[in-house]
Amino acid sequence: MEHLKQEVLEANLDLVNKNLVISTWGNVSGYDAETKLIVIKASGVNYNKMTIHDMVVVDLSGTIIEGDKLPSTDTPTHIELYKAFSEKGVCGIVHTHSQFATSWAQMGRAIPCYGTTHGDYFYGEIPCSREMSAEEINSEYEKNTGKVILEAMSHTDCIHMSATLVRHHGPFVWGKTPTEAVLHSQVLEYIAKMAILSELGFPSIHPIPQVLEDKHYNRKFGPGAYYGQK
Amino acid sequence: MEHLKQEVLEANLDLVNKNLVISTWGNVSGYDAETKLIVIKASGVNYNKMTIHDMVVVDLSGTIIEGDKLPSTDTPTHIELYKAFSEKGVCGIVHTHSQFATSWAQMGRAIPCYGTTHGDYFYGEIPCSREMSAEEINSEYEKNTGKVILEAMSHTDCIHMSATLVRHHGPFVWGKTPTEAVLHSQVLEYIAKMAILSELGFPSIHPIPQVLEDKHYNRKFGPGAYYGQK
Amino acid sequence: MEHLKQEVLEANLDLVNKNLVISTWGNVSGYDAETKLIVIKASGVNYNKMTIHDMVVVDLSGTIIEGDKLPSTDTPTHIELYKAFSEKGVCGIVHTHSQFATSWAQMGRAIPCYGTTHGDYFYGEIPCSREMSAEEINSEYEKNTGKVILEAMSHTDCIHMSATLVRHHGPFVWGKTPTEAVLHSQVLEYIAKMAILSELGFPSIHPIPQVLEDKHYNRKFGPGAYYGQK
Amino acid sequence: MEHLKQEVLEANLDLVNKNLVISTWGNVSGYDAETKLIVIKASGVNYNKMTIHDMVVVDLSGTIIEGDKLPSTDTPTHIELYKAFSEKGVCGIVHTHSQFATSWAQMGRAIPCYGTTHGDYFYGEIPCSREMSAEEINSEYEKNTGKVILEAMSHTDCIHMSATLVRHHGPFVWGKTPTEAVLHSQVLEYIAKMAILSELGFPSIHPIPQVLEDKHYNRKFGPGAYYGQK
Repeated sequence: MEHLKQEVLEANLDLVNKNLVISTWGNVSGYDAETKLIVIKASGVNYNKMTIHDMVVVDLSGTIIEGDKLPSTDTPTHIELYKAFSEKGVCGIVHTHSQFATSWAQMGRAIPCYGTTHGDYFYGEIPCSREMSAEEINSEYEKNTGKVILEAMSHTDCIHMSATLVRHHGPFVWGKTPTEAVLHSQVLEYIAKMAILSELGFPSIHPIPQVLEDKHYNRKFGPGAYYGQK
Repeated sequence: MEHLKQEVLEANLDLVNKNLVISTWGNVSGYDAETKLIVIKASGVNYNKMTIHDMVVVDLSGTIIEGDKLPSTDTPTHIELYKAFSEKGVCGIVHTHSQFATSWAQMGRAIPCYGTTHGDYFYGEIPCSREMSAEEINSEYEKNTGKVILEAMSHTDCIHMSATLVRHHGPFVWGKTPTEAVLHSQVLEYIAKMAILSELGFPSIHPIPQVLEDKHYNRKFGPGAYYGQK
Repeated sequence: MEHLKQEVLEANLDLVNKNLVISTWGNVSGYDAETKLIVIKASGVNYNKMTIHDMVVVDLSGTIIEGDKLPSTDTPTHIELYKAFSEKGVCGIVHTHSQFATSWAQMGRAIPCYGTTHGDYFYGEIPCSREMSAEEINSEYEKNTGKVILEAMSHTDCIHMSATLVRHHGPFVWGKTPTEAVLHSQVLEYIAKMAILSELGFPSIHPIPQVLEDKHYNRKFGPGAYYGQK
Repeated sequence: MEHLKQEVLEANLDLVNKNLVISTWGNVSGYDAETKLIVIKASGVNYNKMTIHDMVVVDLSGTIIEGDKLPSTDTPTHIELYKAFSEKGVCGIVHTHSQFATSWAQMGRAIPCYGTTHGDYFYGEIPCSREMSAEEINSEYEKNTGKVILEAMSHTDCIHMSATLVRHHGPFVWGKTPTEAVLHSQVLEYIAKMAILSELGFPSIHPIPQVLEDKHYNRKFGPGAYYGQK
């Protein structure tokens, strides 16, 4: 658990280095599959002053297990995602308001796969969740945010697609570790910028051919993957 | 007063760190509610060389109380705002020409609330002041700049909406402290960028639903706020 | 002359700090009104390794007076401008390919005065030079570049308007000193970015009212200027 | 060979400094004309931890000659290019997913020569390779990527045009040395940004006149070149 707290702290701080957050925004959590406990950033803490003492441990009911601060207000969203995705191996979740990914969330648009940079990490378009109802917003908003993410992901494998844009809000991104979830957040921001530039420069653009998407994703993550070292 | 001078100095220097000003541009002031005195940056001073001696103390009539330099030419604008807003708790004002917020001012457009990042800090659209008349420009221009900001804010609470774009010019932003006013300036620039990107990527975009705006603003600043630590 | 060489060196290096040049691009020169000599960067020198020995002294005929390197290929352009402008007090010239100003040059468009940030430094629109003929390009190209700049400036005071975009190429900018010319280059890049953003966000934008332009320019540089310290 | 390995290492690290890559993306190789051996970055290595031991030596058949890691998956693409271009003096190749150049690749568009910054380095428009067939993608994809680059370059001299955009993917760029190839990658990204800005600001833009393109390219690289030192 101490190891996970340290990784979650470093992953949070890395959001600043990668220009994905400012002020107190965003949060990273990590999940320990054995104890079923979550380490998450405390709510409203400034990254400039963040220490290991700003890491809060909660269980899947949201009860604080360790730490003297309140966890991120987005904790119920993280919990919903871990409940659904941890069996598949998701043990890290990141939420940011990074500028280009958030702009797509504001547009209410899924990000089409316009290139192999996208296809190298995300299989298919990055989904955007539906409009939430007044009831979903007014009661258990953060839990319901998790539920609309799961709805947007209902036909999609969470290992092949590790991000969803929450409509009007911003991205939630995950990975096998908190560190990987930060990398996926950085890649999402990168491709979100290129996708809008590509549309501005060529309005009749189409997503890349399926065969190319399959090739790129599979050479990194498929059964015969040959990218990287053995 | 020495404490306030130090805070105003640091807030001015923070504008550079946050990429909100270059050269001698922009200014931060702070207001001491007890003595009704304002600390403000001296006019035309370069941020590279700024010290505590570039902080000038003036009263609400604009008379220099302390300091051997001339205060910012925008001092009469700050004075108008403190006269109107200090009772509500506004004790810090920032003016910048930050690039995206200033671009909206140049367009002469209010910034619609296109996402929760906006709604987390600013309740409703960021107003843009009306065209000033030749008379208002040629006589007491800086005081009249304050007056058109107040006119743009006439139906709006200055605590819930802490910024106005001065048409053709740039943003004036405020907060409970100089430090908070700098944060609001940084957030304004951030959302101004995302708003233009969102319109370019989805020209038929609409502001977010009122219920979502209420939810986000109130969970941070409403009576039952639950963001951050107690 | 040693003092001027030092200032020109520092002004050249400052182009890198201000993100206005990469590699060996761009150049700053300074003019000594007494001796009628020009200090200019040597041609093709990388900013990473630049020293005082890369500053070349030439006279107004282009003859090398001091230094063992070849001066910038743009030297004849600088010479044309000093011949025309030095009487008015211009003693510094900068050429860059800064990205937003150069994009306007590529468009072949003058930059309209869309805001007071522009009006604070440049009185009226930033001119763009006309298409050069094949003859002008094939013979004495760099001298003719100077001539088309002067043509674009023929009805304009070089103190009130300190920049011209060379069509298809990039900005030439000047000031009373090399240091001021660098500042003007930085401001030009800043307003060039805001001008394109303003047009993208509000295609029917118009330049600011003349009375506002006069007010802003004159409060800094007019007879009754009151910006800055006495 | 040790000297080349060191240069290739430094060229790879320079991609990070120049903001052309993140994470493990991209790669630089160098070619030794005497031994006909290639030094290339190992596959999937993070730039933060890269050392000389991540440089792999392969021959033109792709066989590993030195090094205990697998070479970049893009090695077959590099090999195709060296086979075709090394006789002309190409001894360095760079592949990145730099954001603006990759956006043009995603658009599937060649980059027109809209200014002299482009013309100073690249003679004519930067080509974009054709769509690859399913067969070309599914079998020997990386080798076929090299082949479609060569096809796009079939009527073009590889010294005068040192880059091709691989459709849907990103730029491959070359030079006489790995260091020069990195410079060309940086310039490509710079002009790719200005080209999209220029189109957005002036949709009816045309490429620069041929006479101007000839002038700029030739004053740097033609028989009577006079840019730089002798």
